[in-house]
Amino acid sequence: MSTPKIYVAVVGVGLVGSEFINQLLSIPPATSPFHLISLTSSTRALFSHTSPITSSSSWKADLAASADRPDLSKLTKELAALVSPSQKVALIDNTSSEDVAALYPVWLGSGINVITPNKKAFSGDLALYQSIIAASSKSGARFLNEATVGAGLPVVGTLKDLVATGDKIVKIEGVFSGTMSYIFNEFSTGAADGPAFSSVVRIAREKGYTEPHPADDLNGFDVARKLTILARTVTHSSPLPALQSFAAVQTASLIPPELEGTPTGDAFVDGLPTFDGRFAQMRADASKEGQVLRFVGVVDVKNGQVRAGLEKYPVTHPFATSLGGSDNIIMFHTERYGARPLIVQGAGAGAAVTAMGVLGDLLKLV
Amino acid sequence: MSTPKIYVAVVGVGLVGSEFINQLLSIPPATSPFHLISLTSSTRALFSHTSPITSSSSWKADLAASADRPDLSKLTKELAALVSPSQKVALIDNTSSEDVAALYPVWLGSGINVITPNKKAFSGDLALYQSIIAASSKSGARFLNEATVGAGLPVVGTLKDLVATGDKIVKIEGVFSGTMSYIFNEFSTGAADGPAFSSVVRIAREKGYTEPHPADDLNGFDVARKLTILARTVTHSSPLPALQSFAAVQTASLIPPELEGTPTGDAFVDGLPTFDGRFAQMRADASKEGQVLRFVGVVDVKNGQVRAGLEKYPVTHPFATSLGGSDNIIMFHTERYGARPLIVQGAGAGAAVTAMGVLGDLLKLV
Repeated sequence: MSTPKIYVAVVGVGLVGSEFINQLLSIPPATSPFHLISLTSSTRALFSHTSPITSSSSWKADLAASADRPDLSKLTKELAALVSPSQKVALIDNTSSEDVAALYPVWLGSGINVITPNKKAFSGDLALYQSIIAASSKSGARFLNEATVGAGLPVVGTLKDLVATGDKIVKIEGVFSGTMSYIFNEFSTGAADGPAFSSVVRIAREKGYTEPHPADDLNGFDVARKLTILARTVTHSSPLPALQSFAAVQTASLIPPELEGTPTGDAFVDGLPTFDGRFAQMRADASKEGQVLRFVGVVDVKNGQVRAGLEKYPVTHPFATSLGGSDNIIMFHTERYGARPLIVQGAGAGAAVTAMGVLGDLLKLV
Repeated sequence: MSTPKIYVAVVGVGLVGSEFINQLLSIPPATSPFHLISLTSSTRALFSHTSPITSSSSWKADLAASADRPDLSKLTKELAALVSPSQKVALIDNTSSEDVAALYPVWLGSGINVITPNKKAFSGDLALYQSIIAASSKSGARFLNEATVGAGLPVVGTLKDLVATGDKIVKIEGVFSGTMSYIFNEFSTGAADGPAFSSVVRIAREKGYTEPHPADDLNGFDVARKLTILARTVTHSSPLPALQSFAAVQTASLIPPELEGTPTGDAFVDGLPTFDGRFAQMRADASKEGQVLRFVGVVDVKNGQVRAGLEKYPVTHPFATSLGGSDNIIMFHTERYGARPLIVQGAGAGAAVTAMGVLGDLLKLV
């Protein structure tokens, strides 16, 4: 059984990209089923399929020393020329770029497998998503996106298995944002009072748990994108709407209307204390009912609804008792799992676990 | 891309086997990547690779009407003759037989992929396990056993991914037995008293949650077998002992020594009330410390220990708060998951979810 090694090209060498490359190169070359042949950053490119990249200590310097500028159409041609019935090629998109995502149909159509933690393609325009499916189906090249939801947690793969084996999804609900998880685990513990919402957000930002501009988390779009990916994976007949994009998800933003459009993160956190009373009131109301507040995402297959927003859960619910830190938690309610859902929980963000989700997908090609 | 359909042979058509066949046949024939060509029960066999089995309503009658007796060496020859570089063959062992498990090295050596929820091979003699690994490695045929631990829950696959991507496993701990889960979720809720142990066991048996002889659950061997499978999957360098078999797991049986060897399940449950005081005392002691009792399995990689037995957990721990019914819960403590483990939870037994785990594995061959 001497299958040729799979050629791997990496686009994006930031936090996740670098960690991915290091994890990939930590597989001993003698046993590794992969040849890393190309790197593309925002300013440089490296392509060397005859002499693969093997050193985790020197690839950064080698890339920086390259005279080649990034050129994705050139890369596409070079990779497509390598594809053959006996030679697999995989492109790893470790960016979060829409422009890169727009190229997936081209790559898949050329027989190049695409693996990514980038949510843009699968949660964006339905037309792009459909052309990805069509290109993959035509060429047989695969697109794998486990790391788009819950990073390294087995979420997308688990859902695909449930669907592929004929289970019927009733509802998927979860805390899909590590940032939102941290904020509400701190803010709402079941007690009637606690820290001010603005102070929790400020601390989360200082710890690097939020985007530089916290409104980019509090708008709920990250959750809406993940829900779109999951909803589109539920392919069996259901009353779910065909989401035109993540913007079609019913998303209840946490940004106070008065702060919409605040230009900087600093100005945003400075303005937030004015609205602490609203959040404190919601917390007190929930507490009176023995409940906590959690920012959740729900794919309600049965009722044909996809929504993201603040909901209340009893203090005895796993979203209250089991969740901590910035963990994600995802519950799959299905026909086969009946009264008690299948639950996956753990860190859903961070370079190491995200890169692991990507590498796990790549190993599926072997 | 016209890959030939994968030939599938099923050995064992009991609860799990029947459910598996029905799930497999519910994939529309036009799109199914599989041809079901053989069935073997304890009394009959059916082999028809030119005219695959397609009807979920008639396969039972067809098998019953067959004149062929089960003959696994004949089946081996027939399947091996079908294997070619372009033709995959998968044998699904849905029995719990040691005799069938002993044939895996032969099948794998002949290029036949083996997929099974049968724990016997992977938790039995180390020599058998090693010959399975060797045969698979030599021929390239795969053995997949997701459903041996946690049924359809993503447990074995998640662990394999963690290991393959270079994460370091620190500890795996969980409630791996649905029976033990139910018994202790009912028996020990954190309160100082509650129902008698013997009455919980009696009810569990009446509900069909235990084996006909409850000692077959209370001896902890089922958990020890699952731990052996997981421990052997942790292949990175660790102080873990190479388990000679599941019998090498430190297993603290719950069978009162006085009842060891009780011949029948009826006699066993009749004798159990005599020992209710012991269990009640343990529950009261745990309650005083704010803890509950759970029968857990632990693969402590860091400390080189594999054990199964009754342990105490704080009432705030997920094993106390999140667990219910007869759910399994498994925590992976790893280097990358740091302070907070990756958790998988849900029904870990039952024909539908077990068959789903098997079918999910089979789909990995496509």
